[in-house]
Amino acid sequence: MNIVLISTPIGFLGSGKGGGVELTLNSLVSGLLAKGHTVDVVAPKNSKLLETSKKANIHFVEGEEQKSWQHRDYYSAVCIPDNSLLSGMIEKAIAIAKKSDIILNFSYDWLPIWMTLNINIPIAHIISMGSESSVISNLISNVYSKYPRNFAFHSKIQASDYPFIKNPIIIGNGFKLDNYIFQDCKDGPLGWVGRVAPEKGLEDAAYVANAIGEKLNVWGIVQDESYAKKIEELFSQGTIEWRGFLETEQLQKELGTCRALLNTPKWNEAYGNVVVEALACGVPVVTYKRGGPSEIIQHGKTGYLTKPDDKESLLSYLNIIDKIDRKNCRKWVEDNASSNIFTSKVVNWLNTVIKEYQFKNHI
Amino acid sequence: MNIVLISTPIGFLGSGKGGGVELTLNSLVSGLLAKGHTVDVVAPKNSKLLETSKKANIHFVEGEEQKSWQHRDYYSAVCIPDNSLLSGMIEKAIAIAKKSDIILNFSYDWLPIWMTLNINIPIAHIISMGSESSVISNLISNVYSKYPRNFAFHSKIQASDYPFIKNPIIIGNGFKLDNYIFQDCKDGPLGWVGRVAPEKGLEDAAYVANAIGEKLNVWGIVQDESYAKKIEELFSQGTIEWRGFLETEQLQKELGTCRALLNTPKWNEAYGNVVVEALACGVPVVTYKRGGPSEIIQHGKTGYLTKPDDKESLLSYLNIIDKIDRKNCRKWVEDNASSNIFTSKVVNWLNTVIKEYQFKNHI
Repeated sequence: MNIVLISTPIGFLGSGKGGGVELTLNSLVSGLLAKGHTVDVVAPKNSKLLETSKKANIHFVEGEEQKSWQHRDYYSAVCIPDNSLLSGMIEKAIAIAKKSDIILNFSYDWLPIWMTLNINIPIAHIISMGSESSVISNLISNVYSKYPRNFAFHSKIQASDYPFIKNPIIIGNGFKLDNYIFQDCKDGPLGWVGRVAPEKGLEDAAYVANAIGEKLNVWGIVQDESYAKKIEELFSQGTIEWRGFLETEQLQKELGTCRALLNTPKWNEAYGNVVVEALACGVPVVTYKRGGPSEIIQHGKTGYLTKPDDKESLLSYLNIIDKIDRKNCRKWVEDNASSNIFTSKVVNWLNTVIKEYQFKNHI
Repeated sequence: MNIVLISTPIGFLGSGKGGGVELTLNSLVSGLLAKGHTVDVVAPKNSKLLETSKKANIHFVEGEEQKSWQHRDYYSAVCIPDNSLLSGMIEKAIAIAKKSDIILNFSYDWLPIWMTLNINIPIAHIISMGSESSVISNLISNVYSKYPRNFAFHSKIQASDYPFIKNPIIIGNGFKLDNYIFQDCKDGPLGWVGRVAPEKGLEDAAYVANAIGEKLNVWGIVQDESYAKKIEELFSQGTIEWRGFLETEQLQKELGTCRALLNTPKWNEAYGNVVVEALACGVPVVTYKRGGPSEIIQHGKTGYLTKPDDKESLLSYLNIIDKIDRKNCRKWVEDNASSNIFTSKVVNWLNTVIKEYQFKNHI
């Protein structure tokens, strides 16, 4: 199969601004290459693919980034800036895709989804967020009524944010397991991983660390400086140890030494990459029964699920974290979220999109 | 030729909100039908075509109207509202155009122009305004570099607002002459026609009428109520006689009795339909040396051109308006701006767009 991928227009690959999408894209590209498919990636200037996906053809586009829908009002209109990066990426993808089988879009935005209705190439969309915008949800509803197979979701709970999707295609997510080393460190420190921004709820994890008088290791880019400062001031000095945004190789080394990952999203997280990354290193996770993580963590086996936003419960489960066998964590990832498993699900899905497209258009 | 027209997304045809575009579209449709072409018009719900263009197939689309670029900041981003009328019209046009030769776009907006780059159908654009938006001008520049034949302008002076257009295609405009009756009324009242909005400069015409102690007949929709009220209060009571928005049939009857049309735009008017409508009835025009009207009026022959915004000059030329032979006015329209002449120019232009498209795509 020849596949053209459209990356996120929020930041270049490697910047960390695209969050989980960057990891998902890299994991899928390396999986597709390993299975012998041809991959073209259309991405913002300065993007870098990880080592295992470097054999893909990368096409750079320059322009003004889109504002993330996570940080806009739910009822905002679509905004396309002058010299739009997103529209440039779509133009490029369509031009290349004339010789390809399908376009696979990773951008959660209006323009690429709308194009499904208007071009002679099938476009499939990995929806990477819950419903974050009225105009996008209404557009997905409209396009879905004509192209019901062209949308895939990471988790059932994410798909349920779009109530008009009747039988959602769930692809989970995938991780290159060689990149994560199992570590059996029952006495390690506490960890937290994510973009530092309000929807990620860092304050709840810091509360727990502060309550037991430990420090919290925080990995990830500080997207919202004033939010980070506010949280730092809320707790005893030194509660938070800022460790910055690290490449996977370094991140997993440090993360693997933790005795637990605290995961505290305030929103309906589509999947929860960092939860799986922790599991892959053998780190159990204490998280809320909300969004993707609640579908990943097996309560009492690979970590614990608490009532959303209940910090005292987080704390009490953290106290019995040593009851979790760290080998279970690694095993769950091997059985459910390897790059190979994820890639197979995506390939099967894309094949149905292509076949339906050919059938409809009598090709 | 089979042509699909995309109407303006500012208001339905017949509402008057689309200004000159409504008349241009109707005139072209009737001209195309008369020459034996097939025409599909994609237009907002409630749109009505004039009698002579009723044989076209009309396709209605519902949705949220676009904000006019005339009334937005020059550096605004593109905005696409939820349930967008414009995107719905484009979808419909593309779907129909699969069996047509070309799409002809009348909408001055980002989305249809951008689509030139992305679909397998030629799209030609009649640009109906001067440069009103940075993002649209930059997009036209970008698309023009790849599709230099796909843009046409009403006047040279309008095209010069886009300095990157090297050899602009100028199509003028066209009017169904049967719809306008020549009247030789040298002693009639003063007239002004247009949307009542700041860029149309009604206050300058009212100043002239007030100075000679006459009333000014004003035809057109009041788009900006507070502006209309402000002007009314500026001058002696009864200076402005509001006559509302009339269909062509009634408008030309009343307009034809005027001894002069005062035309006072504050902006670079692309063409100046009302100037030609007045001429077609035999009414000479006093207007500014600015925008399209300055290319239409022959100074001393069909009216007078004054320095822009110079109200005293308007007044002095109005005093010698009886020196103009009203027959010259009608004749200029017959020789330069009939529906038939306009349609021929458009058909020739569209043929070059189609041929170039076929050549580039080896069809």
